[in-house]
Amino acid sequence: MTVYMDELDAFAYSTKIGSGSPVLIPAGSIEQHGPHMPLGVDTLLSRRIAGETAGLVNGLVAAPIVYGYKSQQRSGGGNHLPGTTSLDGHIITAIAKSLVLEFAGHGIKHIAFINGHYENYQFLYEGTDLALRELASARTHDVTVMLMSYWDFVDDTTINELYPNGFTGWDLEHGGVLETSLMLHLFPDQVDMTQVIDAPPAQLPNYDVLPVRPELTPSSGCLSSGADATAGKGKILLERASRGMSEAILAEFA
Amino acid sequence: MTVYMDELDAFAYSTKIGSGSPVLIPAGSIEQHGPHMPLGVDTLLSRRIAGETAGLVNGLVAAPIVYGYKSQQRSGGGNHLPGTTSLDGHIITAIAKSLVLEFAGHGIKHIAFINGHYENYQFLYEGTDLALRELASARTHDVTVMLMSYWDFVDDTTINELYPNGFTGWDLEHGGVLETSLMLHLFPDQVDMTQVIDAPPAQLPNYDVLPVRPELTPSSGCLSSGADATAGKGKILLERASRGMSEAILAEFA
Amino acid sequence: MTVYMDELDAFAYSTKIGSGSPVLIPAGSIEQHGPHMPLGVDTLLSRRIAGETAGLVNGLVAAPIVYGYKSQQRSGGGNHLPGTTSLDGHIITAIAKSLVLEFAGHGIKHIAFINGHYENYQFLYEGTDLALRELASARTHDVTVMLMSYWDFVDDTTINELYPNGFTGWDLEHGGVLETSLMLHLFPDQVDMTQVIDAPPAQLPNYDVLPVRPELTPSSGCLSSGADATAGKGKILLERASRGMSEAILAEFA
Amino acid sequence: MTVYMDELDAFAYSTKIGSGSPVLIPAGSIEQHGPHMPLGVDTLLSRRIAGETAGLVNGLVAAPIVYGYKSQQRSGGGNHLPGTTSLDGHIITAIAKSLVLEFAGHGIKHIAFINGHYENYQFLYEGTDLALRELASARTHDVTVMLMSYWDFVDDTTINELYPNGFTGWDLEHGGVLETSLMLHLFPDQVDMTQVIDAPPAQLPNYDVLPVRPELTPSSGCLSSGADATAGKGKILLERASRGMSEAILAEFA
Amino acid sequence: MTVYMDELDAFAYSTKIGSGSPVLIPAGSIEQHGPHMPLGVDTLLSRRIAGETAGLVNGLVAAPIVYGYKSQQRSGGGNHLPGTTSLDGHIITAIAKSLVLEFAGHGIKHIAFINGHYENYQFLYEGTDLALRELASARTHDVTVMLMSYWDFVDDTTINELYPNGFTGWDLEHGGVLETSLMLHLFPDQVDMTQVIDAPPAQLPNYDVLPVRPELTPSSGCLSSGADATAGKGKILLERASRGMSEAILAEFA
Amino acid sequence: MTVYMDELDAFAYSTKIGSGSPVLIPAGSIEQHGPHMPLGVDTLLSRRIAGETAGLVNGLVAAPIVYGYKSQQRSGGGNHLPGTTSLDGHIITAIAKSLVLEFAGHGIKHIAFINGHYENYQFLYEGTDLALRELASARTHDVTVMLMSYWDFVDDTTINELYPNGFTGWDLEHGGVLETSLMLHLFPDQVDMTQVIDAPPAQLPNYDVLPVRPELTPSSGCLSSGADATAGKGKILLERASRGMSEAILAEFA
Repeated sequence: MTVYMDELDAFAYSTKIGSGSPVLIPAGSIEQHGPHMPLGVDTLLSRRIAGETAGLVNGLVAAPIVYGYKSQQRSGGGNHLPGTTSLDGHIITAIAKSLVLEFAGHGIKHIAFINGHYENYQFLYEGTDLALRELASARTHDVTVMLMSYWDFVDDTTINELYPNGFTGWDLEHGGVLETSLMLHLFPDQVDMTQVIDAPPAQLPNYDVLPVRPELTPSSGCLSSGADATAGKGKILLERASRGMSEAILAEFA
Repeated sequence: MTVYMDELDAFAYSTKIGSGSPVLIPAGSIEQHGPHMPLGVDTLLSRRIAGETAGLVNGLVAAPIVYGYKSQQRSGGGNHLPGTTSLDGHIITAIAKSLVLEFAGHGIKHIAFINGHYENYQFLYEGTDLALRELASARTHDVTVMLMSYWDFVDDTTINELYPNGFTGWDLEHGGVLETSLMLHLFPDQVDMTQVIDAPPAQLPNYDVLPVRPELTPSSGCLSSGADATAGKGKILLERASRGMSEAILAEFA
Repeated sequence: MTVYMDELDAFAYSTKIGSGSPVLIPAGSIEQHGPHMPLGVDTLLSRRIAGETAGLVNGLVAAPIVYGYKSQQRSGGGNHLPGTTSLDGHIITAIAKSLVLEFAGHGIKHIAFINGHYENYQFLYEGTDLALRELASARTHDVTVMLMSYWDFVDDTTINELYPNGFTGWDLEHGGVLETSLMLHLFPDQVDMTQVIDAPPAQLPNYDVLPVRPELTPSSGCLSSGADATAGKGKILLERASRGMSEAILAEFA
Repeated sequence: MTVYMDELDAFAYSTKIGSGSPVLIPAGSIEQHGPHMPLGVDTLLSRRIAGETAGLVNGLVAAPIVYGYKSQQRSGGGNHLPGTTSLDGHIITAIAKSLVLEFAGHGIKHIAFINGHYENYQFLYEGTDLALRELASARTHDVTVMLMSYWDFVDDTTINELYPNGFTGWDLEHGGVLETSLMLHLFPDQVDMTQVIDAPPAQLPNYDVLPVRPELTPSSGCLSSGADATAGKGKILLERASRGMSEAILAEFA
Repeated sequence: MTVYMDELDAFAYSTKIGSGSPVLIPAGSIEQHGPHMPLGVDTLLSRRIAGETAGLVNGLVAAPIVYGYKSQQRSGGGNHLPGTTSLDGHIITAIAKSLVLEFAGHGIKHIAFINGHYENYQFLYEGTDLALRELASARTHDVTVMLMSYWDFVDDTTINELYPNGFTGWDLEHGGVLETSLMLHLFPDQVDMTQVIDAPPAQLPNYDVLPVRPELTPSSGCLSSGADATAGKGKILLERASRGMSEAILAEFA
Repeated sequence: MTVYMDELDAFAYSTKIGSGSPVLIPAGSIEQHGPHMPLGVDTLLSRRIAGETAGLVNGLVAAPIVYGYKSQQRSGGGNHLPGTTSLDGHIITAIAKSLVLEFAGHGIKHIAFINGHYENYQFLYEGTDLALRELASARTHDVTVMLMSYWDFVDDTTINELYPNGFTGWDLEHGGVLETSLMLHLFPDQVDMTQVIDAPPAQLPNYDVLPVRPELTPSSGCLSSGADATAGKGKILLERASRGMSEAILAEFA
């Protein structure tokens, strides 16, 4: 049976959550990812990685948060880039809060956000905090929420293995080896490796400036090159990230 | 080339909107649709019908609004039913407002919401109005937004043809012949006709009462029976609705 | 003794609500209603119809919601018309929420909105839902709220009787026979039948477009003609609507 | 012709505002006013005093803000008292902001709030400021808004004349001579002088404490006695206040 | 040991509040105070007067609300003046609400706002009311909040003593004898008496008009002259105000 | 002359900003920092480091944002700890937005947030983005805002110099060598080195879980030990951070 909630009918959903399954909520974005990948990368990946993880923890995957917080130049190239379509912070917070409250209202005790878009994190966190405060005010204290960014579960061993020439940090991985490899493994039809622009990593300052100076973002929109990406690396990344997340979930929700 | 924005890369998206294409934004919900269809029906259908329509108007389909406004008993059975997972009205409004502003910021002049969940309508309308007011305040007056519910484009001839035993109104079509037929045509793998509960249409009062009285909603969660649904009817419905919408779009955006 | 709360002193109010009376909240608008009727029609009618209904259920009528949600072209001609003065949706929602919470705080268990302006409905519904959610969070579960639009209680028999030449639907009744007749019966001094513009019903599309195309609304601002209105019809409409609503209230709040 | 906007038809309204008339917006409340006056005193008085003033400045009176900000113990006895039904501050602000923007959108350049409920003032002020900021952002700089509380236009001479035994300040006039006299003059049928409780003025601290200590408010709910009120005093108060306000309006809007 | 919370370490803070100490929250502003005093006057004074008061009631002083509500012409000269840097009303309300909830969450039962900027008052009041409503909804009823403006605790005897030539009211004291004397006593290094502009009190209307007419505010920005200010008067003012507030606090929180 | 805005009078402020000075806005928090430092550390440090930086760029320091966003367990120990007193995310965003708009209204073109509390960052960013969007809507395009966290300007050379035994990352520096050294250098009277708890760095997971598990935070509340802190290190840190920030500011605002 599918782990994706939106593919279940209401009765099957009821049965599933009645068994105590955790719900994993993927959070993505509609954001440019260079000329070789589609705008929906973050939503596609967070949903599928959540699906893989759900399979390991007997969990369900909620319908995704499709639109994310504004792309920031130092992690996503910037919100000015074509195709990037984002929501204000308070909306991400409101969605996260509502979803926690809705699922809690369904009787679910264990919820985890599986974040695939760096910029979402603090707003998901705030929404979670506000939801739990509201639940606590109503004397509900048995709902627990985890917030995870999937790349944080790629361990150093894997990084060394997949980035033999050195790793420049997750912040520059936008449109780079990590995401491209995962897309090659999971959605090969949606990647066109001939379009990868193999440029050196972006040189970005250690602060933000707004309005952004567009010239700081490489013309590809990617902060590092995806040229070394392979489906094989994607398979490894998927396994490590989902295994790491599943272990954390099982530990926390035990 | 795909009409779905989230499947396009940023450069292809730029080219497409540079040609003046309208953007169609599907608005769905995560809502119970009886034992024979999945929770994602409204999102699936609004996205695909928007896709069909886009094909007729050289348009693009935005990533969908996945979660919708609360299910109301007289049009969706009620928000208390298992699986139905909804957002407050102000969030739907905020998302609609943001999307209009984002697409307007991309230079798009013609936007249409393709609504697949009755309860969303007024909140999409309000978000649109607020966005256009903000644009007008900034002296942008050349963005036009249409708001359409796809079933409003099924004409009386079609209704008579598809409902030979009489039509009880769109409000009772939740989980009934309309949606089931469209799902059978577009997503046959996600319908299980053996699970249809063939009960008479729900008897609902001409007002709302909150908290809902759960006994007013049939146990199936559907307000009318989908037993007479067929893929053939779905094909007709898809053609008529998308043709009607495409004609309206071409006329308004000419 | 008056049924209108704002005409009662605080001590009489206390006594009245101490007896278990339901509170009916009229919701109107300040909206053009053609050259023959004043801007306050919806507020006047919703308040008086609520008064008539209150008399039948031993209820009280709250002070009205005077300003309503924005007039929409397909039901009120559009918010661009002179004199129409409206509030954003979130304000209608906030007022409705606050009033439910205030009256609940007074110890009132039975509340009904008597809506006289189509466009208000979803925002009143949302305010009610939010208020009840807040009450439920504080473990108050014994407050019930009904939402009624008075014209929904005019039955088919009455429609056939009053519209012998055919009925074009409530949506086109803006400034037409229904409202004009009720005004002639209840506030004859505020109607000038010599000013009625007797034009055929408006031809409006089955979707909304914003900014509105002003030419779609008849120059009168009315969507159908009030020429056939009479005080006698108004008397019948008042009786049928108030009787229908009173029966529903007595049944729900028994 | 009536000065009350809600009693005008849309075409008459258009003509009137086309002549440059200022719009006066009455702001009242639903608040207990002792056993001798109804809950609607502040709304009734602010509307009628605005009407009298409008007559002197060729102005129009907008439909009133019926529900006001929460009654505070030191000026209105407190929001805990029976019948008092109030809105949160942000709603009063939002209504004031919307009305200024709506009337400005109608082409009106001169707007004045005629406040009849002390507690409203800062929230009306904030709403006005936000509206003018939004207009300024859109480069509209020719809208001017005045904010007046009618009692501030009762001059010292009148006070000495009407309060021969000494005046204890406007803050304690809740339900006292000022409001009772005005009601006797304007709405004599809604005052019952036999029910006046003739007690000494309330003794209230020079700070607020929340939750209120109910014992600090006299049992009548009035902060001073209305026993000395007469219709004659009401006539004088109405003349002085409306004359004072009209002079201020003519001076500011010249 | 210091009474200022922000100078305490977390463990000392815990011990202190464990003893039942009330928390006093100073509320100031960043607002012009003429050429002889700095922009931070209201924040400096409210914090130090709170400190003096805390010493008399075994209390703690919270970190101050530094930015206040917009300066109004009739009490602070107006928000258009150079240096005045303010927040919208809803932000002051939100800060006040959050602080009450945070301190209540720490187990504190007695909270007092010590206001040093007239314009803040209603927004602090609203924030307090909303916080207590939320606490009540969660069944916490033992938190009490006082709201005090320190000048309200300067009694008539002191006024007569310090203003031998007559007192024109607190509203005109902006930048005048009261604040200048207190600054001379508490922060002499931050006052330059050679810069005082000794002009007669401002002549301001008994209403507000927006946008402000700048010519109504004296060029100094002060509404009355601080020329008669002395450190000695400041010492007396500090003593009387803090003694008065401490007595009120001890009485209410006994 | 002081660089701190709140210590300037309005006329001196006007002169200063008239010369084109950038404004630096410190953003701190009220947050536990172990038993050896006060709750105000982040506010004290961000303000003083901003002051030092301002001296190098001929800038002004705005009054600080005193209360910050909620402490998060992985960067500040968690918001449940005694003394930590925080604001919701939307309030930080609203304050940041308002301050940018207020300073822009003063004619200031160059603004920089100097952040001293990790958790604030995204909310300051959002407030900045919203303010600039509003300015752009009003056709103001010449205001630039930088967002800097001061520790990001401590370069690798300095880190190696000051952390000879290895550096565990800024996230664990809460209450550790960085902050303690800076406090020893700038506010030695507010540090008590005898109270430092010399424990190994906290072991925290690579995700968040809410409600927090309190046992994950060391009993000191610090995430690493401040035992190796010295005033000398603080002096170096101050110099490097302020120099780095001043260079960035001069470069961006040239």
